[in-house]
Amino acid sequence: MEKLKVAVIGCGSIAIHRHLPEYQANPFVEIVAVCDLKEDRAQLRASEYNAQAYTDYKQAITDSKADLVSVCLPNYLHAPVSVFAAEQGKHVLCEKPMATSEEEAQQMIEASNNAGKKLMIAHNQRFVPSHEKAKQLITNGEIGKVYSFRTTFGHGGPEGWSIDGKESWFFRKEEAFIGALGDLGVHKADVIRYILGTEFTEVAAMVEASAKENSDVDDQAVTILRSEKGIIGTLTASWAYGAGEDNSTVIYGEKGMLRLEDDPAYGLIATYTDGSKVNYELGQIQTNDSGGQSSSGVVDHFVDSVRNDTKPLIDGEEGYKSLQIILAALEANETKKNISL
Amino acid sequence: MEKLKVAVIGCGSIAIHRHLPEYQANPFVEIVAVCDLKEDRAQLRASEYNAQAYTDYKQAITDSKADLVSVCLPNYLHAPVSVFAAEQGKHVLCEKPMATSEEEAQQMIEASNNAGKKLMIAHNQRFVPSHEKAKQLITNGEIGKVYSFRTTFGHGGPEGWSIDGKESWFFRKEEAFIGALGDLGVHKADVIRYILGTEFTEVAAMVEASAKENSDVDDQAVTILRSEKGIIGTLTASWAYGAGEDNSTVIYGEKGMLRLEDDPAYGLIATYTDGSKVNYELGQIQTNDSGGQSSSGVVDHFVDSVRNDTKPLIDGEEGYKSLQIILAALEANETKKNISL
Amino acid sequence: MEKLKVAVIGCGSIAIHRHLPEYQANPFVEIVAVCDLKEDRAQLRASEYNAQAYTDYKQAITDSKADLVSVCLPNYLHAPVSVFAAEQGKHVLCEKPMATSEEEAQQMIEASNNAGKKLMIAHNQRFVPSHEKAKQLITNGEIGKVYSFRTTFGHGGPEGWSIDGKESWFFRKEEAFIGALGDLGVHKADVIRYILGTEFTEVAAMVEASAKENSDVDDQAVTILRSEKGIIGTLTASWAYGAGEDNSTVIYGEKGMLRLEDDPAYGLIATYTDGSKVNYELGQIQTNDSGGQSSSGVVDHFVDSVRNDTKPLIDGEEGYKSLQIILAALEANETKKNISL
Amino acid sequence: MEKLKVAVIGCGSIAIHRHLPEYQANPFVEIVAVCDLKEDRAQLRASEYNAQAYTDYKQAITDSKADLVSVCLPNYLHAPVSVFAAEQGKHVLCEKPMATSEEEAQQMIEASNNAGKKLMIAHNQRFVPSHEKAKQLITNGEIGKVYSFRTTFGHGGPEGWSIDGKESWFFRKEEAFIGALGDLGVHKADVIRYILGTEFTEVAAMVEASAKENSDVDDQAVTILRSEKGIIGTLTASWAYGAGEDNSTVIYGEKGMLRLEDDPAYGLIATYTDGSKVNYELGQIQTNDSGGQSSSGVVDHFVDSVRNDTKPLIDGEEGYKSLQIILAALEANETKKNISL
Amino acid sequence: MEKLKVAVIGCGSIAIHRHLPEYQANPFVEIVAVCDLKEDRAQLRASEYNAQAYTDYKQAITDSKADLVSVCLPNYLHAPVSVFAAEQGKHVLCEKPMATSEEEAQQMIEASNNAGKKLMIAHNQRFVPSHEKAKQLITNGEIGKVYSFRTTFGHGGPEGWSIDGKESWFFRKEEAFIGALGDLGVHKADVIRYILGTEFTEVAAMVEASAKENSDVDDQAVTILRSEKGIIGTLTASWAYGAGEDNSTVIYGEKGMLRLEDDPAYGLIATYTDGSKVNYELGQIQTNDSGGQSSSGVVDHFVDSVRNDTKPLIDGEEGYKSLQIILAALEANETKKNISL
Amino acid sequence: MEKLKVAVIGCGSIAIHRHLPEYQANPFVEIVAVCDLKEDRAQLRASEYNAQAYTDYKQAITDSKADLVSVCLPNYLHAPVSVFAAEQGKHVLCEKPMATSEEEAQQMIEASNNAGKKLMIAHNQRFVPSHEKAKQLITNGEIGKVYSFRTTFGHGGPEGWSIDGKESWFFRKEEAFIGALGDLGVHKADVIRYILGTEFTEVAAMVEASAKENSDVDDQAVTILRSEKGIIGTLTASWAYGAGEDNSTVIYGEKGMLRLEDDPAYGLIATYTDGSKVNYELGQIQTNDSGGQSSSGVVDHFVDSVRNDTKPLIDGEEGYKSLQIILAALEANETKKNISL
Repeated sequence: MEKLKVAVIGCGSIAIHRHLPEYQANPFVEIVAVCDLKEDRAQLRASEYNAQAYTDYKQAITDSKADLVSVCLPNYLHAPVSVFAAEQGKHVLCEKPMATSEEEAQQMIEASNNAGKKLMIAHNQRFVPSHEKAKQLITNGEIGKVYSFRTTFGHGGPEGWSIDGKESWFFRKEEAFIGALGDLGVHKADVIRYILGTEFTEVAAMVEASAKENSDVDDQAVTILRSEKGIIGTLTASWAYGAGEDNSTVIYGEKGMLRLEDDPAYGLIATYTDGSKVNYELGQIQTNDSGGQSSSGVVDHFVDSVRNDTKPLIDGEEGYKSLQIILAALEANETKKNISL
Repeated sequence: MEKLKVAVIGCGSIAIHRHLPEYQANPFVEIVAVCDLKEDRAQLRASEYNAQAYTDYKQAITDSKADLVSVCLPNYLHAPVSVFAAEQGKHVLCEKPMATSEEEAQQMIEASNNAGKKLMIAHNQRFVPSHEKAKQLITNGEIGKVYSFRTTFGHGGPEGWSIDGKESWFFRKEEAFIGALGDLGVHKADVIRYILGTEFTEVAAMVEASAKENSDVDDQAVTILRSEKGIIGTLTASWAYGAGEDNSTVIYGEKGMLRLEDDPAYGLIATYTDGSKVNYELGQIQTNDSGGQSSSGVVDHFVDSVRNDTKPLIDGEEGYKSLQIILAALEANETKKNISL
Repeated sequence: MEKLKVAVIGCGSIAIHRHLPEYQANPFVEIVAVCDLKEDRAQLRASEYNAQAYTDYKQAITDSKADLVSVCLPNYLHAPVSVFAAEQGKHVLCEKPMATSEEEAQQMIEASNNAGKKLMIAHNQRFVPSHEKAKQLITNGEIGKVYSFRTTFGHGGPEGWSIDGKESWFFRKEEAFIGALGDLGVHKADVIRYILGTEFTEVAAMVEASAKENSDVDDQAVTILRSEKGIIGTLTASWAYGAGEDNSTVIYGEKGMLRLEDDPAYGLIATYTDGSKVNYELGQIQTNDSGGQSSSGVVDHFVDSVRNDTKPLIDGEEGYKSLQIILAALEANETKKNISL
Repeated sequence: MEKLKVAVIGCGSIAIHRHLPEYQANPFVEIVAVCDLKEDRAQLRASEYNAQAYTDYKQAITDSKADLVSVCLPNYLHAPVSVFAAEQGKHVLCEKPMATSEEEAQQMIEASNNAGKKLMIAHNQRFVPSHEKAKQLITNGEIGKVYSFRTTFGHGGPEGWSIDGKESWFFRKEEAFIGALGDLGVHKADVIRYILGTEFTEVAAMVEASAKENSDVDDQAVTILRSEKGIIGTLTASWAYGAGEDNSTVIYGEKGMLRLEDDPAYGLIATYTDGSKVNYELGQIQTNDSGGQSSSGVVDHFVDSVRNDTKPLIDGEEGYKSLQIILAALEANETKKNISL
Repeated sequence: MEKLKVAVIGCGSIAIHRHLPEYQANPFVEIVAVCDLKEDRAQLRASEYNAQAYTDYKQAITDSKADLVSVCLPNYLHAPVSVFAAEQGKHVLCEKPMATSEEEAQQMIEASNNAGKKLMIAHNQRFVPSHEKAKQLITNGEIGKVYSFRTTFGHGGPEGWSIDGKESWFFRKEEAFIGALGDLGVHKADVIRYILGTEFTEVAAMVEASAKENSDVDDQAVTILRSEKGIIGTLTASWAYGAGEDNSTVIYGEKGMLRLEDDPAYGLIATYTDGSKVNYELGQIQTNDSGGQSSSGVVDHFVDSVRNDTKPLIDGEEGYKSLQIILAALEANETKKNISL
Repeated sequence: MEKLKVAVIGCGSIAIHRHLPEYQANPFVEIVAVCDLKEDRAQLRASEYNAQAYTDYKQAITDSKADLVSVCLPNYLHAPVSVFAAEQGKHVLCEKPMATSEEEAQQMIEASNNAGKKLMIAHNQRFVPSHEKAKQLITNGEIGKVYSFRTTFGHGGPEGWSIDGKESWFFRKEEAFIGALGDLGVHKADVIRYILGTEFTEVAAMVEASAKENSDVDDQAVTILRSEKGIIGTLTASWAYGAGEDNSTVIYGEKGMLRLEDDPAYGLIATYTDGSKVNYELGQIQTNDSGGQSSSGVVDHFVDSVRNDTKPLIDGEEGYKSLQIILAALEANETKKNISL
């Protein structure tokens, strides 16, 4: 069988550390094009992966005869490049946050639908073993009715991750639109929707840009969410947890409590009201830190959905709903009102 | 020197487990009166502490010639009894939440001021060693500028603590007015104000009564606070953490992070951005669980402030400000707007 | 509703530490008779539990108008007393091993069947949380096809438990018939049948009486079992694990391994071939040691089965099958041949 | 002094990971010949160790003028190649199990005796520090009279170790003759004889081939052994412990219990009936896993015995006795009778 | 057989917590007399142990017809009372330090020798399991030649132990003569002599009285010792280790190091130059703290030596040699010279 | 700005593992000359660091136009080379011990003073985080008045570190003058002076050369020190702690105790008399073992002091005072008298 051809648009850290090696490791894919405005970056990856280098994304998408396109660009380019790719009949894997507005997100969904191609958003936290296990336990009713939760994602900021360090687009509002909320918060919005199997209908929030110099986007955000079933909880995102990354989620239910990624030894700890306790050692969470980053599962899932013509776990609609929560949080902060979804 | 005479009004759990034994252990105090509407409860404590039993609080306060009055009653009685006691020229130690409205709280303050007597609210968390140490570290600038925090207090509900179990006044709106927020949330509102040394100016919140049957008060509350200095954080309270009490606070700053009562071995863990970590084994937190409840520090502090005529650490004004946050949270939940303080 | 009346026959350790306190704690039962050949022992328990003391078991069973009879006697008396009680129309809870021969066991079953009454054998290990959880995991297919197992029960010998110490009937062949195999081995024969949900068809064994002086029964036994499904494993019993009790079971399957009561912290540890590991902190195993012997679950289950007229989990047939394995082991040791069941 | 010359026959995993590097590290030996039916394998090792490559074992043994011959071949070739080498006047180090029948083993012993040369069988477990320490403690009487034991060796199967993976000769009866029992069980038969300093006189066993596809040898074996002194115990071997290797031995005695290789931190734990406990951190056991495989001690011991003309610790007679146990287990399984040795 | 009669002279803490209960627990002894200058103390113990109370030690020793005398008095009375008792033909167990001068010690030895009776000094550290095990390991050559050591004994001071608290004779020079060195240092002088099996020939020291108010004896002492075999080491004693008792000894040898009472979990840790490490969990050390003070072993040993007419492990000569070291340390401090023994 | 030029004199282990890599890592320095009597050693480092190789130290110092000179030579050469370098107008960083006599040390100080250049002694222990933190805590009065201390430095000897192994100059008196005391003891003399902020006025000591063959210097030393403020403590140094390096210091004060480098997990543990305990995880101590030897801090501090023209933390006077203690210890051992400083 012939391999699927992929064009990776953007050669920053997410392409370097995730998309490119994961496509390379997938036996059904061939990397045919890499693209970056900075030609040297494109050339470097091209030679590493034996692909063609481009500086113009349109050329990269069309000339390369790619079947798949990975969009690894600053947030403000997610929508236009994804739409273009879909219009060219490509399956698209786009980084999060999906877009910078609801309108853009809708355009992406429509373009892919019109083309009859897949659109997937790279919310890798759904593939973390502790998240999958928690979803399974909740679905099976192991903790009974869910009452509340807290979920957070914070680290020291993108300067330690981005290829451009402190000069990264992450800190510029016109390119990022959203700061920690878009970088980290949207991950937890997506994964808490997924784990709880519910949609949120109300958002309150306070947002600050107090920790980073030379930045005009949010770096601290605390939000509260209410689900259609009356579950309430907090979702926080921060670029100022420099003393220790926190990617934890805690879920409180009638019969017990689940602690996810909240313990150095166990990915999941279930504690029950009957006094019993179950510790799960599962695979490690995917972080930006060094260490065993074998695979986030995102690329493999995307490729499978194309090969088997199945709906991706995080399709455009899913990405859209997770994005809505973050956009509502920003609006709640500005209007000082709770926002209904 | 003659001993101070105290009348303890209300013979429920808080009187039994804290006020009475702490007064008994204090060498400068003599328990002269105990009072409860249920005569047998009053008699039982009277014989235990060699005091006079009353069923009428006014008699208990006036006839006993008490110098001090401890108000250990359901929330809706805090204000009237405290005001009466102050008017009779007594120093008052009142349980939290101070009152059920701002007006009541103001009346209490005025009554004590007019009488020239002390009014203290029993926010014992200020005397927890880890809270005191955190305040000291923050004051000394050890973690630099504070960006955000999360603080929570949750357990399985007052039915495991109250002398009346599931029939407790804690679950009845007309007597309690506020549920988990008043029982637990106000503790954290008070202690986070104290630790950070700042006042909060904006509150958002969502509140639910989803976990307890036969209850018409809140049992889940998630709130967000913004300080005058732009610190944002979450404060949550719950009566549905049946699988494990949580009384933790985490504070994020420029140079490090403080984790309070968030680890089974260490009351305080300071982690710094330079990679160093300091673990503090301090005295244990005061909880309702069995175990080393030697003293909360509240009664001793109150007695000292009377003896030395010093301002109590948590006087009426302090109690009022902490109460305001909780009342604002309830209003925010109802109006779906952020409330300014 | 009227309480069920129980007569407890035999006032040795098992009656003192398990049957009597568990009946006492059960709200649906009244202890009406206690019986022991040594009158002072019977009197002591009679006064402790406000019951009638007997030295003649027939009288105790008939005169007391008991509904239930607990047989807490040396092994050689299990059958005659149980048969007598059944013939008198009593529900019978008999200690393990059920009997000293297959014939006796069959008589017990028939007598109860004829009377239309319950017969239960006190194999309490089925109620140990880790055993229950393991059965559930295996039933759910979590470890796939089971290949093999090892299960053991050993401690320092009955002299540390029996009311008669080194003079106990446990060491006399004419009263005990079987030593460690009957005291401990039959427990594991029963519980491994239960956990695996399979019957064993072949037994090989070696048995020794090498550790105890003044004893003429087996104190060491090593056996191997083959199930109808081709599962093979070892079952060992010993009265010479004086340096540390061992009550562990390990089960090896296609997808993982379960370790039960083999770790000081976790009652059950599941290790999977995919590298994940799940540690279960469950309720403690029931042992003869001091400590939290709240309840073995045996008496409550027996009472429930009588009250609801349901089949007891370990009825006569179940007890019989577990006994067969032990008897086969003794025969295998003597004949030096594998015994088919 | 001139170095001893060695010819290593067979270039599979055991030669690659043990024999070749250990000869290389021994200052008194020179590797002169490597031999494998697959020429490329022989060439690869020849160039790595600067030796001559052969595909014909007879040539390798004779032409190379080797003093020593290491037999690293499938089981069915152990005897013929060892006999040939001995007849050519070579000292022989043969892998375990020594042979596939008692007759073959006797021929090997005779051939070496006739040649006046050494024959050693590579039972490396005798050199494991915890095994040596246990032998010493038992010899010194530290645990008194030994009553019983259990010893096991199981892992996920030779497909993870053999150079041919799932196509390995280990799974083919005509080449391996014995499966897990010959691969792993014979190790424990040898080492338990050594540690206890006793011979076994009776064997019962059950053996299954239930876990591996495309295999016609045993992959599960449970056996029981009785020693001349009345010690009884279990010896198990398995290729289906995929969730975790187990190489443990537990020995129960009058005064205490020794646990060998049964704890992740301590190679040996001695627990005594007086309540004391001694934990030994010794050198690591030799396993097939990656990690510190500095040396099994086998090659060094063999070379020393040749250089000093001393009897090897595991000579032909020792290998023969350990082999007998395994062969008896297979016979016991087939005849369903205990086999006397 | 008739029981030995004992008179215990002095009813302070050492009598209350050690001598009296240990005599009581010994089946061969009857407490016939207790004596204290303070009559109420004597009466209290007399009624507790059913003995005769005395305030005059001579009467207590003679009138009671005691066979044994325990001297539990301030240091300056050790010699006169022991000498008197020996002269009356009594076996004497005297607390440490044996005496306040070499002359006194010699008189005690002579008096007992003349009477043909036993004299034992209560150096209980020789009976600590870790000390016994270390002596055995060193004697067996397990750590080879010994090079050096450090041994220390420090706690918060006798005020927490003595029946008189801060008013204790321990702090008065005319009664105690020696402070921490006599209370604690002499214990380690004795036990290090015992463990190493060597005598010390040279002592240097510095001593201070810097920590205790209202005390005129040493509370800090650091000394160095040289043995006849050239072993050098430090011995320290302190009454100012208020933040944690330290009773540790470390011994450095050619082949390894022994750490005694230097770890919370293990009484003895042996670390070897070959990288192996052995942890011993043995019985607990005897301290003045609360907890399992079943027996120091001293009284039982003394009684055995009288009953079997054997030399006590710590007879007068042994006590004398240990005392000499402490006296030399005081002299070294004063003269600023090393003292030869 | 132009880089400072450094000449490193001596190419043994201290140059290889510390001076050269630390100069290399410092952005303000350029290594221009390396010098060793053995030309191949000099050449090797010259090519590694792109410097000029010398065998004559005078040439290396003068011809290279170095600004800085690092003296990494045997002890007896410290003074002459440092003096020469100072006379040539160089800033000098000299290894410890500074010199082999007080006279030499004074000459070094004078030469640098005359030249107006820096002289620093490489007492790297002052830069260990736990030592710095302890100094800060003591200065702040956290443990109140200091009473006593013990400090030690021992390992298996310089043969495991020196480039010449057992043939090292460390073992030859004419080159080293002082053994373990000069290699290790002087480190602790310096650091304990620094931490306590006090000078010592009296030294007693015993010294032995009992552990090393082919050595004529001390390999065991135990000393006691008294400070001007009456603090007494022990300082020990050893080359015979082959079973485990010990670099610990314990300081006892009025309010608490500090344990430095005495725990595998925590660099500093503070225990207080109020029962609280604080564990510090700080940067690792600098040892000769493999592992994270990023930087000792010595070279960076030296370079900073030259660049900013500030007094180095360990200038000649400081090195001199630390040396005095060691020299006094040797004298005390010989004269058997306490030596006053």
